[in-house]
Amino acid sequence: MRVYNFSAGPAMLPADVLKQASDEMTDWAGTGMSVMEVSHRSKEFVACAADAEATMRRLMGVPDDYRILFLQGGAFGQFAGVPMNLTAPGDVVSYVNTGQWSKKAISQARAYDLDVQVVADEAASSYTTVPAPSSIRAAEGSSYLHYTPNETIGGVEFGYVPDVGDVPLVADMSSTILSRPVDVSKFGVIYGGAQKNMGPAGLVVVIVRDDLLGRARSITPNVLNYKLMSDADSMLNTPPTFSVYMLGLILHWVEGLGGLEAMSARNLAKAQALYGAIDGSSFYDNPVAPDARSWMNVPFTLADSALDAEFLSGASEAGLKTLKGHRSVGGMRASIYNAMPMEGVQALIDYMAEFERTHG
Amino acid sequence: MRVYNFSAGPAMLPADVLKQASDEMTDWAGTGMSVMEVSHRSKEFVACAADAEATMRRLMGVPDDYRILFLQGGAFGQFAGVPMNLTAPGDVVSYVNTGQWSKKAISQARAYDLDVQVVADEAASSYTTVPAPSSIRAAEGSSYLHYTPNETIGGVEFGYVPDVGDVPLVADMSSTILSRPVDVSKFGVIYGGAQKNMGPAGLVVVIVRDDLLGRARSITPNVLNYKLMSDADSMLNTPPTFSVYMLGLILHWVEGLGGLEAMSARNLAKAQALYGAIDGSSFYDNPVAPDARSWMNVPFTLADSALDAEFLSGASEAGLKTLKGHRSVGGMRASIYNAMPMEGVQALIDYMAEFERTHG
Repeated sequence: MRVYNFSAGPAMLPADVLKQASDEMTDWAGTGMSVMEVSHRSKEFVACAADAEATMRRLMGVPDDYRILFLQGGAFGQFAGVPMNLTAPGDVVSYVNTGQWSKKAISQARAYDLDVQVVADEAASSYTTVPAPSSIRAAEGSSYLHYTPNETIGGVEFGYVPDVGDVPLVADMSSTILSRPVDVSKFGVIYGGAQKNMGPAGLVVVIVRDDLLGRARSITPNVLNYKLMSDADSMLNTPPTFSVYMLGLILHWVEGLGGLEAMSARNLAKAQALYGAIDGSSFYDNPVAPDARSWMNVPFTLADSALDAEFLSGASEAGLKTLKGHRSVGGMRASIYNAMPMEGVQALIDYMAEFERTHG
Repeated sequence: MRVYNFSAGPAMLPADVLKQASDEMTDWAGTGMSVMEVSHRSKEFVACAADAEATMRRLMGVPDDYRILFLQGGAFGQFAGVPMNLTAPGDVVSYVNTGQWSKKAISQARAYDLDVQVVADEAASSYTTVPAPSSIRAAEGSSYLHYTPNETIGGVEFGYVPDVGDVPLVADMSSTILSRPVDVSKFGVIYGGAQKNMGPAGLVVVIVRDDLLGRARSITPNVLNYKLMSDADSMLNTPPTFSVYMLGLILHWVEGLGGLEAMSARNLAKAQALYGAIDGSSFYDNPVAPDARSWMNVPFTLADSALDAEFLSGASEAGLKTLKGHRSVGGMRASIYNAMPMEGVQALIDYMAEFERTHG
């Protein structure tokens, strides 16, 4: 029996995509091999990777002067990759701090002999808000400004793209990429781990503007060097072939549903339904400011935390999985990425109402 | 129809493993989810990763004072990871050069302000030999000595483990790990990309002796830092969960066949049969010194290279795939990793004999 999986990542995948991957597992594209077994230099796999790149470019409207790289090491690896590729020692860099993923990025950047300026920090609200657009200004001479459009743990999401003038804007879009349209031309670098909206863990996508290539420090590992990887079509070494294949299947699934506008409408409807259920009850609570609420990750608490364990075990029996909140926050968290259907959100809402009726 | 895939990597996988992965694709371990969808912090996945680690430790006889890490970025990433983790600027390091993969490791090490000493180099034989055991001596004060036990392109393999005294011995075992027993206690660090004998691309296994942890330079990306990853059971960030799962399936497959002694006997028999066919013919030739011939990668040439294309197209029609030699070498290359059965090698030998009969 398939369940509704509310995991923050790795996360639910489209059932049709999993079925296709299963069906093709021993004979892919007429090769008589799994996609995992074919050489990454084979014409079949080169075409597969090129199709994933082209489909992503089309779906997101990635301009011609941006490269799309398929790398390894996760978004966490890019916390180092960004400063290594875009700075020299002593440079000023600006970071916005909206929660735990921002903090990890900031902490890693400090390893690279930089003047790290945290230009906005939502500590005062306990990270339940995002900065006002007018309050985000890059520090003088910044090599880039980095922010986290969606924080999976706090459940806060920017409803806008910061305007930082000519300073390259860098975004960790791991948990929001492909969930709604985005104007890529406003960014210098977009990166994201695949394991929320783009497939299995083990792939990180980096979208980088051409003029930012070629600035890497000599100490940058070749596998994290944007220019070397761009010149090699992301095949300087063996890429994570199965992950790239899965990304392609998912991109075509998104396109088949109508692309990012349609995905945005789906995701907004799911989020509105769930937040509506929480706000309409005095039994459940979400602490995030309404204009900063994430469409992807919805943390909520019960009026009495002593009921948490019973809520979770009942949910699990009802096929509603992985609802436990992050250990640093407690309570519940429902991650409702692209692959979560409205039926899953409705099943959760129904379960919550019934639990409140019997325990409220 | 399944074929025999002689790709150098990504490479053939055991059919039983692929079938299990396919069968479990939408409901793994009774979770109602794919292994790709479950949280890496779930009890099911934590158990899966721990089982892969324990099975690898048992199969390879990894001593208790070694950690087994599951990282990303490939062996190529470790070309940087090794010097970042084991050296300070200005240190002396020793490398053995037996071909193209050695050279890539050496080239990457030069990025880290080291005194890189190439203490043995097989250039004189055009990389068709390995150094004599007595000729491998680490340079005075070396932080480590690095070598490549098997070169996939040249098809040369060490039949012995170099003795370098107290200097930590570091080996890129990507193409030979799990193919035969190895005395892990002789090494400081063993690393290997998964895509030959350990599953799909996207996972690199690092086996590191405890006393070598904690020496990383501050510029080491956290995701490549052995100590941080060891302390976090390789889950500092989201690991490549599907790849770890596949590794586990493959390790159990190896164990079910009798472990590394049995695998060694299988691999030796396959290699002897194929080299025997080549040596018994004046139509085919392998240039590698007999004591340095790889059990995993068997390059060979035809007497008349004008026949290469016809040889390859006929082989492909017979279900013998990916036999074209590396672009830098030409000719043919048969990679016969663990998952290649003797039946596949015999089918190749039969095809070669028939091709020689009709074209010789």
